[in-house]
Amino acid sequence: MPDLPMSGLSTSGSPASFRPHAPERTLVGIVGGGPAGLLLSHLLHRSGVDHVVLEARSREEIEHTHRAGILEAGAVQVLVDAGLGRVLRDGARHDGIVLRFDGADHRIDLTGLTGRSVWLYPQTDVFIDLANQRAADGAYGAGGSGGAGVAGDVGGAGDQIRWGATVTHVLDGGGDRPGVLWTDRQGRAHELRCDVLVGADGSHSTLRHTLPESQRRTFVHEYPYAWFGVIVETPRSAPELVYTTSEHGFALISQRTETHQRLYFQCDPDEDPTRWTDDQIWAELQRRVAGPDGFRLVEGPVEERSVLRFRSSVVEPVRHGRMLLAGDAAHTVPPTGAKGLNLALADVVVLHDVLQTWLAGGGRAGRRDDTVLDEYGRRVAERVWRAQHFSAWMSGMLHSHPGETEFAARRRLAELRMLVASESGRRFLAEGYTGWGPVLGEAAL
Amino acid sequence: MPDLPMSGLSTSGSPASFRPHAPERTLVGIVGGGPAGLLLSHLLHRSGVDHVVLEARSREEIEHTHRAGILEAGAVQVLVDAGLGRVLRDGARHDGIVLRFDGADHRIDLTGLTGRSVWLYPQTDVFIDLANQRAADGAYGAGGSGGAGVAGDVGGAGDQIRWGATVTHVLDGGGDRPGVLWTDRQGRAHELRCDVLVGADGSHSTLRHTLPESQRRTFVHEYPYAWFGVIVETPRSAPELVYTTSEHGFALISQRTETHQRLYFQCDPDEDPTRWTDDQIWAELQRRVAGPDGFRLVEGPVEERSVLRFRSSVVEPVRHGRMLLAGDAAHTVPPTGAKGLNLALADVVVLHDVLQTWLAGGGRAGRRDDTVLDEYGRRVAERVWRAQHFSAWMSGMLHSHPGETEFAARRRLAELRMLVASESGRRFLAEGYTGWGPVLGEAAL
Repeated sequence: MPDLPMSGLSTSGSPASFRPHAPERTLVGIVGGGPAGLLLSHLLHRSGVDHVVLEARSREEIEHTHRAGILEAGAVQVLVDAGLGRVLRDGARHDGIVLRFDGADHRIDLTGLTGRSVWLYPQTDVFIDLANQRAADGAYGAGGSGGAGVAGDVGGAGDQIRWGATVTHVLDGGGDRPGVLWTDRQGRAHELRCDVLVGADGSHSTLRHTLPESQRRTFVHEYPYAWFGVIVETPRSAPELVYTTSEHGFALISQRTETHQRLYFQCDPDEDPTRWTDDQIWAELQRRVAGPDGFRLVEGPVEERSVLRFRSSVVEPVRHGRMLLAGDAAHTVPPTGAKGLNLALADVVVLHDVLQTWLAGGGRAGRRDDTVLDEYGRRVAERVWRAQHFSAWMSGMLHSHPGETEFAARRRLAELRMLVASESGRRFLAEGYTGWGPVLGEAAL
Repeated sequence: MPDLPMSGLSTSGSPASFRPHAPERTLVGIVGGGPAGLLLSHLLHRSGVDHVVLEARSREEIEHTHRAGILEAGAVQVLVDAGLGRVLRDGARHDGIVLRFDGADHRIDLTGLTGRSVWLYPQTDVFIDLANQRAADGAYGAGGSGGAGVAGDVGGAGDQIRWGATVTHVLDGGGDRPGVLWTDRQGRAHELRCDVLVGADGSHSTLRHTLPESQRRTFVHEYPYAWFGVIVETPRSAPELVYTTSEHGFALISQRTETHQRLYFQCDPDEDPTRWTDDQIWAELQRRVAGPDGFRLVEGPVEERSVLRFRSSVVEPVRHGRMLLAGDAAHTVPPTGAKGLNLALADVVVLHDVLQTWLAGGGRAGRRDDTVLDEYGRRVAERVWRAQHFSAWMSGMLHSHPGETEFAARRRLAELRMLVASESGRRFLAEGYTGWGPVLGEAAL
């Protein structure tokens, strides 16, 4: 077995010892079965395109990972168009957000300003809807619903999604027939070869790490703050999201259900959430969210806690040969403004569209015009960079930076005041928050 | 003679050796005879308020100092209301600006978006109009027009403006009867005592330096870039201001007259303008302003050159006892967006209004309610901080920062693209550029 790079992955062919007897073949190989990977799987299924999804985690693991909770109107439309309408029933439409500073509330009337709303609908629910739909469409084949987290038998026609499938090597990454070696939960090795390989495997993407350094650029920004996020068992304290900033720092009042809420407050990226008692968390939250009319959060048990680090990153290009990156594998944003999942879904819609064009190019895979695949990167770039700016802008405006000068703090406050005092300012913010319109087509940009 | 601080000024009474025999008395003492000081003088004259202006430089010196060239609509209105209407005849109304990036021009239709325009009218012309008007109103007394730069006899009723009058000490700064010791061009010492003392003496304000450190806060931001500004003898190359940014950095195409233009390009704050040949300056400018249709600047002799440093600063409070600061003495902004002179004129209009209220409080000076004077700071603060944010925002968006990450550079470009693509974004920018409406009254904020 040859020396492997740190990631345990190699782009230089397949180590002989790992190669199974008969490589499986498919048109589209998808690494990653989160919302991006599953939406692509769902869209490809509806288009009748043969594909396989490999996801290292179990379905349960993903269902219990708390992530973003706000969907742009365009993202909701994507789900509805894909036949996943539960968001309209179980999601909560939000027509505004509140910016709380100077001890007062300043509502941004998203719908009044842009004609668009956002939906409170957690990422886990998006995942569950997609996973259920794929199950209903027979995607788990012999492995059943996949609910047990065990990969079913390999190679069955209906067996499109493999949970617990860990990619160990990328094969022929820049070539005509990219593939991966992967192992199932039982430690058996498998090989998958495809016409095109999609990395939808999140911010720690193994696929991204196999792209040659010399052929990609990574744009990165690290932030000197993070979010301390909790899920608490209480009724709602506010009907809409409340973004608060004061000399104590940032906090965000969000919602989940009638009985559970999502709250965040700015903390050090190295904060250890386990060293906080519930009382300390509530005291810090109450101090941060202080507002008009003696506003207080309803308190209750803190059920979950974690620190969300802030990182902006963009990889370019998103195509290397017939390998393509989508969602967090291609770009990450800080959580402020909740653009991550929305970007991932927008990526996938465009990617599916481009893949159809490419596949329709016909003939044997080797003869297809791969420059068609570049359309994908070209079409998503503007939205990705808008979201990067928007997330960094909202973050910068609302957080107190460690070591921030008094000038910078006052300037932030001046910007917030000026923004909410101007209808144009409010609308410009609302345009970004609601996602700049439809996902597809030039009109979206 | 007691030890004096570095600035050569003392707040702790007057050194006996400098004290002239008979202190001059006036209601309002104004240190600084630039546009802010002269506008205040003019407004006070029209209100019939006794005052004296002390300016260290000669009138010629100020007339030959090139400064900002853009007046907000509200600032033009201030001048017109003050009877100084030449701006409407000799100034050039600009209904838009151009942002040039990605090799294309993006016009911001200021007037279409906000109903307001700006005027190209150099600061020196504002000064000349004020100085001429004050001369016509007899402000120079026995000293004539002041054109010779010699202070006239002291104490005459019409002798309100003293050129070449250098303040050496501030007397009783926090007390009821503040005053200054000053020397004329002949080195003779004088004392001026007043009911209220106004520091309109620019960014290096001597008055500001006498405020006790413990009672003031200074908010400061330094920038890692500056402007290399030139005046060239050529016809106009563009009808409106063109703000350009590219990988080569920022440049600004501005205008002055039919025969002379004002151009700038981003440089290091420590750049030595004398080491550049004309050819090098033109080559750098052409490289920076490259635009659509093979755009080229018309070249010609470089008549003046200087480096404009960028500094944001705000002093609070602007009142100490009966000493008040206005214009650059109270706050400075970087030149991007041309807010400096506009802020100074807005300050003075509000200050004049507040002084009238305070003076009308009646009775002997010692009995007046000085908290009335705090209205001044309260009323100008929002505009000052808006301008601070606006100037820093425009600067940040348009300049390449030394050591800027690739992420930051791309994010800037994303912001510019998003801004010009959105009518709300363009309008929000235009609102700031044109000055947020009228200067006086709550509606202005």
